[in-house]
Amino acid sequence: MKLVLVRHGESEWNKKNLFTGWTDVDLTDTGRQEAANAGELLRREGFDFDLCYTSYLKRAIHTLNLALEQLDREWLTVMKSWKLNERHYGALQGLNKAETSQKYGEEQVRVWRRSFDVRPPLLNEDDDRNPRRLEQYRAAPPQELPLGESLEDTIARVVPYFEKTIRKEMQNGKRVLIAAHGNSLRALVYHFEKLSKEEITKVNIPTGVPLIYTFDENWNVTEKKYLGDPNLIRAKIESVANQGKKQ
Amino acid sequence: MKLVLVRHGESEWNKKNLFTGWTDVDLTDTGRQEAANAGELLRREGFDFDLCYTSYLKRAIHTLNLALEQLDREWLTVMKSWKLNERHYGALQGLNKAETSQKYGEEQVRVWRRSFDVRPPLLNEDDDRNPRRLEQYRAAPPQELPLGESLEDTIARVVPYFEKTIRKEMQNGKRVLIAAHGNSLRALVYHFEKLSKEEITKVNIPTGVPLIYTFDENWNVTEKKYLGDPNLIRAKIESVANQGKKQ
Repeated sequence: MKLVLVRHGESEWNKKNLFTGWTDVDLTDTGRQEAANAGELLRREGFDFDLCYTSYLKRAIHTLNLALEQLDREWLTVMKSWKLNERHYGALQGLNKAETSQKYGEEQVRVWRRSFDVRPPLLNEDDDRNPRRLEQYRAAPPQELPLGESLEDTIARVVPYFEKTIRKEMQNGKRVLIAAHGNSLRALVYHFEKLSKEEITKVNIPTGVPLIYTFDENWNVTEKKYLGDPNLIRAKIESVANQGKKQ
Repeated sequence: MKLVLVRHGESEWNKKNLFTGWTDVDLTDTGRQEAANAGELLRREGFDFDLCYTSYLKRAIHTLNLALEQLDREWLTVMKSWKLNERHYGALQGLNKAETSQKYGEEQVRVWRRSFDVRPPLLNEDDDRNPRRLEQYRAAPPQELPLGESLEDTIARVVPYFEKTIRKEMQNGKRVLIAAHGNSLRALVYHFEKLSKEEITKVNIPTGVPLIYTFDENWNVTEKKYLGDPNLIRAKIESVANQGKKQ
């Protein structure tokens, strides 16, 4: 069994180095190109799919649409769930990462970005960005919607969603493609590779690069690989790791 | 209960006046603009949706995506089914409508385009365009896939799909938007309005104009209306009706 994960490419707020979380910003032209490249790579390597999953956020939805266009698979069913959304960054959303480092210190920003169980400052209940006040989440149980999440919180919503829905489809023989976000994909990596809390905080997933997991019948990972040019992939991983640094 | 139907806008083959059917051509820039206008109109009139349906053909899929972008509802679930595809035009697919009129006569083309139960010349089994040979339809039961359809055949796949899937969702309170094709939407119009075979052959649905049906609890139509400028709508309806004429 194989599963392909793609992290969305550059968004308008990635470009501005802002904490994004659930803010629903679009891809930049660079991000659109990264998405098309991911689809083109998958097509060239002979990958095919039966079912796709993505989040409620347009940067992931558009990444999937653009990749499917390259794959000539736009007619595939796409399931969307807020459970695959990026980690909710609470009151940090909209703040510049470098400025936040200058204000709170690099160490505090590193803790917010890379610790396992530390939450960012939460949104106030009456904040317009509270998901309970947004049309986008009107069908979700309000008590499940976060005001800010640690990576642990993100794992706690992503992994059960995978287990209850995606895994079942894969066991029925469906070839699945997931387009999502840095932290919702890290939640899956943590789960698949049975990483420690220490280990997952060091994982950086490059944008727009298909990540292929192969599993045996007991869901042990037998192979993990990125598709594409290894130098480009390494450069992308380093670029993600350096985002919290002062400029 | 309300239901909104949108017929896709101009495609590359509409522009060239070719019989399209299941040929998977994209929208033109005009078609993309028509789709965005449909979304913008719906947004301005306060329409909102919970669930969307479209066909397996990219001109309808893209119409829906562009309308949802204007509605800020890209996160809605979109169900795709080949049952909502355009009428299959058999061996006429790829032929120019005006040239076909010159060759076979306007009357024969009118019969193929506007009769209720006359099929076009069918594709050969070994034609590369036979849906049974296309990846796109690999999940469909082969015996259900057509080599050419009359409007009656199209109705026979569209109406049961509506009855089994979409109607149930509407009865559960879901607000539904369908983006599809001239003849798959005519199938629904025939069904909703309980038209005769004579009457449906005279119905022309304009492109990119939201058509709103309101039903009572017994699924009788209590209101039917198009959204938008009445003069533009009339011009669009006439343009569809004139496509089979010799140039």
